[in-house]
Amino acid sequence: MIVVLKPDADCEKRDQLIGWLRGMGLDVHISTGRFQTVLGLIGDTASVDMDLIGSLEMVDSVKRVSETFKRCNRKFHPEDTVVSVGNKKIGGGSFCMIAGPCSVESEEQIVSIAKAVKAAGADILRGGAFKPRTSPYDFQGLKEEGLRLLKTARDETGLPIVTEILSVSDLELFTDIDVLQVGARNMQNFDLLKELGHLNKPVLLKRGLANTLKELLMSAEYIMANGNEQVILCERGIRTYSDYLRNTLDLSAVPMLHELSHLPVIVDPSHATGMARMVPPMAMAAAACGCDGLIIEVHNDPPHALCDGAQSLKPSDYEKLAGKISAVREAAS
Amino acid sequence: MIVVLKPDADCEKRDQLIGWLRGMGLDVHISTGRFQTVLGLIGDTASVDMDLIGSLEMVDSVKRVSETFKRCNRKFHPEDTVVSVGNKKIGGGSFCMIAGPCSVESEEQIVSIAKAVKAAGADILRGGAFKPRTSPYDFQGLKEEGLRLLKTARDETGLPIVTEILSVSDLELFTDIDVLQVGARNMQNFDLLKELGHLNKPVLLKRGLANTLKELLMSAEYIMANGNEQVILCERGIRTYSDYLRNTLDLSAVPMLHELSHLPVIVDPSHATGMARMVPPMAMAAAACGCDGLIIEVHNDPPHALCDGAQSLKPSDYEKLAGKISAVREAAS
Amino acid sequence: MIVVLKPDADCEKRDQLIGWLRGMGLDVHISTGRFQTVLGLIGDTASVDMDLIGSLEMVDSVKRVSETFKRCNRKFHPEDTVVSVGNKKIGGGSFCMIAGPCSVESEEQIVSIAKAVKAAGADILRGGAFKPRTSPYDFQGLKEEGLRLLKTARDETGLPIVTEILSVSDLELFTDIDVLQVGARNMQNFDLLKELGHLNKPVLLKRGLANTLKELLMSAEYIMANGNEQVILCERGIRTYSDYLRNTLDLSAVPMLHELSHLPVIVDPSHATGMARMVPPMAMAAAACGCDGLIIEVHNDPPHALCDGAQSLKPSDYEKLAGKISAVREAAS
Amino acid sequence: MIVVLKPDADCEKRDQLIGWLRGMGLDVHISTGRFQTVLGLIGDTASVDMDLIGSLEMVDSVKRVSETFKRCNRKFHPEDTVVSVGNKKIGGGSFCMIAGPCSVESEEQIVSIAKAVKAAGADILRGGAFKPRTSPYDFQGLKEEGLRLLKTARDETGLPIVTEILSVSDLELFTDIDVLQVGARNMQNFDLLKELGHLNKPVLLKRGLANTLKELLMSAEYIMANGNEQVILCERGIRTYSDYLRNTLDLSAVPMLHELSHLPVIVDPSHATGMARMVPPMAMAAAACGCDGLIIEVHNDPPHALCDGAQSLKPSDYEKLAGKISAVREAAS
Repeated sequence: MIVVLKPDADCEKRDQLIGWLRGMGLDVHISTGRFQTVLGLIGDTASVDMDLIGSLEMVDSVKRVSETFKRCNRKFHPEDTVVSVGNKKIGGGSFCMIAGPCSVESEEQIVSIAKAVKAAGADILRGGAFKPRTSPYDFQGLKEEGLRLLKTARDETGLPIVTEILSVSDLELFTDIDVLQVGARNMQNFDLLKELGHLNKPVLLKRGLANTLKELLMSAEYIMANGNEQVILCERGIRTYSDYLRNTLDLSAVPMLHELSHLPVIVDPSHATGMARMVPPMAMAAAACGCDGLIIEVHNDPPHALCDGAQSLKPSDYEKLAGKISAVREAAS
Repeated sequence: MIVVLKPDADCEKRDQLIGWLRGMGLDVHISTGRFQTVLGLIGDTASVDMDLIGSLEMVDSVKRVSETFKRCNRKFHPEDTVVSVGNKKIGGGSFCMIAGPCSVESEEQIVSIAKAVKAAGADILRGGAFKPRTSPYDFQGLKEEGLRLLKTARDETGLPIVTEILSVSDLELFTDIDVLQVGARNMQNFDLLKELGHLNKPVLLKRGLANTLKELLMSAEYIMANGNEQVILCERGIRTYSDYLRNTLDLSAVPMLHELSHLPVIVDPSHATGMARMVPPMAMAAAACGCDGLIIEVHNDPPHALCDGAQSLKPSDYEKLAGKISAVREAAS
Repeated sequence: MIVVLKPDADCEKRDQLIGWLRGMGLDVHISTGRFQTVLGLIGDTASVDMDLIGSLEMVDSVKRVSETFKRCNRKFHPEDTVVSVGNKKIGGGSFCMIAGPCSVESEEQIVSIAKAVKAAGADILRGGAFKPRTSPYDFQGLKEEGLRLLKTARDETGLPIVTEILSVSDLELFTDIDVLQVGARNMQNFDLLKELGHLNKPVLLKRGLANTLKELLMSAEYIMANGNEQVILCERGIRTYSDYLRNTLDLSAVPMLHELSHLPVIVDPSHATGMARMVPPMAMAAAACGCDGLIIEVHNDPPHALCDGAQSLKPSDYEKLAGKISAVREAAS
Repeated sequence: MIVVLKPDADCEKRDQLIGWLRGMGLDVHISTGRFQTVLGLIGDTASVDMDLIGSLEMVDSVKRVSETFKRCNRKFHPEDTVVSVGNKKIGGGSFCMIAGPCSVESEEQIVSIAKAVKAAGADILRGGAFKPRTSPYDFQGLKEEGLRLLKTARDETGLPIVTEILSVSDLELFTDIDVLQVGARNMQNFDLLKELGHLNKPVLLKRGLANTLKELLMSAEYIMANGNEQVILCERGIRTYSDYLRNTLDLSAVPMLHELSHLPVIVDPSHATGMARMVPPMAMAAAACGCDGLIIEVHNDPPHALCDGAQSLKPSDYEKLAGKISAVREAAS
């Protein structure tokens, strides 16, 4: 960590600061320049409060030169982490197709979609049972019953299942779920992350609406620091001043996360764009820049012919897209 | 709700959409213009999924014309809500000064600060016991012991106490706390909000880092829909591309929230700016634009003379500021 | 345009507003609902000041239902516009590779890079002569001399040239340039846009740092409204709270701009990411989601072996990338 | 400037980089830590291309420790700059009230408003003659005729005038204008800034929609580097994900700009909020946090009784507000 002092920093206060830092077990290297004095802090600076030091009147700025994330950091773990879900592997060259409806609605619905996406090449089934909704008046999911229906669909197809968990208090209901998803709004629900760190099963961690890559990695670190290293990162669009699309899909996060971390990175083009017709181009783009998988909403809903253009693809469109994804991955590799 | 169809919308599909909407119990008024057909939906549209309709290929755009927030909406409740904490009232002209340290560190620390801020005019004591930290390696607070020390400080001074709750599973530890705070990262932890809705005590709800005013009000609605109407809104800075300050304090949220809602609105200038020297100007600005209270970090830490410039004010500076706040409120009224 | 009035709107004021709107030549349809009165404005609403109406106390909200952009709007011009630059076509299925150095530095430099990128498959040469720099103390480009050197490189290779224009007063210097580029910082320099509208040559219009797609299209409209319909749109990254990358490349803008407008859309992955090693994945992603071309920085600078990792690719890497781009386009089509 | 190298940086490449930096006339101090090597660059680093160095593969990060702005920097000029406009002073404790209509519409309009705002205590008259509009189809202002009418209003009232300039080519029309305004969209129109640097009259420089404080100061530096030190900075709201207000007024910019720079800082609450009813609270807030002046839209338009709630205040409301502003400034000082 580097602390840059202001040119007019009082000598006595400076010495107090240096004493305090050394008292925390750090080595302090002092280098005095024309306009500034720069303190180099050597040692375990992970627990040093940058904000506190930065707010001292004599301090011009504080810069961390070593990453605060350790376990998910590629510097200390150069090889790709490969997460296994059933027989399927994600990362390290293995690509994973996750598909299914936004919400589980009925046994017939989830089983028929599970069969359809399996036929279309999906590896894992997704479906929401506990739904986070901005409004308390909106449908909150079938909850426990939804989890039961997902397991039925797994039994019928053999596809492992991934679904979102909203609360630590629901944890025991998820014992038999293959992959637990942490949604964007819970990316910094540290209480939940810690509990997931005690499990021995994969966690799909979605990036929050306005979170940086560092914050995403620190949230992965919460899970990993508690012992669970099976974390899958997921880019799902960030909030900007976008006018025609729900969110801004930040695809450059894919190669950058791969550079920073050894964890697999997947992309959710359905939530990012909110429109089925935008899903194929963005899914192909995500594959082209090297993601390790795609989580895509697919429905199978003949009576609601209306929904042709909604966020979810039809199975036939998904199948077509799956073929193109393979071709794009091969072309880009 | 208004649904604007594209000029080339297929008639049959249009009729299917209208049938589906009517099937949901809505009246649909159709008005056909030169370039667009506009459907006006009359009835209980709160549970209509705007995103689904907006994603239909034939739909140009969907616009909600009635607010989805009801209980916190000033339209349906024109008088200010006044929240009582002990003998203190917040809102409807009553101004509330909340002060205390970022974290509870020891009995001596919290009691001495409590006495100092009381002497300086504070109405409520704040102090973090459970701390949400971006990094799992950072200090997470004294937890249960911190709550106990806060109560000791309350006993010694008579000041009610406000402190952050991170998890539903900690709820029983907070039985005897006067005001429960929901932090920015948990503003959309709907599970927590629902549980707080079952309490009969004030909740201080902080705006999330990148959340809109509507989302903040919908989160208040989660608490209120479950029966607890004692919600205090708090603006604490949003994430932008700010270069010299930690966050961007959005003070125009204060008069706008007052227009939209009857709930009291307070401001946290300490977290928004991250620098004690920025707290007095921004606290005065907040008072000038009509907030109902201020939550400010104050510490009392003679051995750490270093921290003069940190996020927290010294009690003597806080006392000076409190006087100016009164003067500014009078001048602005 | 739709104007939603508040439930308590004063009748007399409402009638004044309606009279005023009718005085502007608009038809006003009034529909009265339970909570709101909605006015539908029919006629030429392009010049109606939404902000003024929206700021009236009796008005809840104003929503425009028809687009304010006309000439670049796909609704009124369903076929793709194809822009010709020399023998090269851009748009309507024709893909264009633009490459060259950030700045023109010397005749030797620009000619050798021009030859290298031509050999690698580029269609158009780029190079900055007038450079917009945040700091007045930074290098501002070779200016007139830079334009002369670009023309020399064109003479030597036959590649058409594109370069940025910063000011109307420089316009006569650009007479013989093939494509004029408007940079992100000038996207709303309306004075410059209007003048470019009087030319009969292609304009490459870059999206501003924090501009919406609608604003980008309105800036295209400025050029087209003055007669010049040869506009190429360019996505080059937007400003967000990105921590590891310079900007956030908004690739979903590509399919969305194609839906909204008939103009060709190209992507600049070099400026968006600021790192050569991020250019290939993002260039392939851009191709996969359907862009009509790529503008990529390439340098050829053996003595500065240092710069291997900089924003610019080496010609050999560019050549390799060009091959992959073709393969990805084929796979995605 | 500090350059942090990656742990695995190749020694030979590192030496090449150091050689190259020394070749640019810089001293390079090398300090080798456990995980990183840090290079400290001493000398004139203003022209060093941070982005280029940062993009080298061996480089982890680059941090500038000295400001690139010099002339507007308070470090090198501790006393406040005071800008004089006629007899009026702005900065250094002198507060300035600028008021007038959004656009100049007619002689009667501008003269009557000028008289009204003068009576209400305004020091300078504002009014738009050249209007930057997002759409080419919107009213662009009375242009030259508008400037003539502003001068008439000045003759009638003695108030100095400020108005926006959009283009270098209009510069000669502004010879007799007292203060030239650079609008938000032109904050990085460097060509215009340079020309204004050659004048000997005050420039009111508005912050761009998504520009940082550093960028604002660098744009001031463009004007000052060319000789004109009479620059007034203006905060006018930034673009965020605001839902109910046009922009987010960033008032913490006021004390922070005062810390960074000696230039006066004024605030425009009319454009930031877009609603007259939000102007008084935000104007008082701006005064409370120490701004040096306010630029507020005022109109005087009895026939358009409709516009009561629009962005512009009525003169009577402005007069009332002016009184409160004085009281708030006194209370806050």
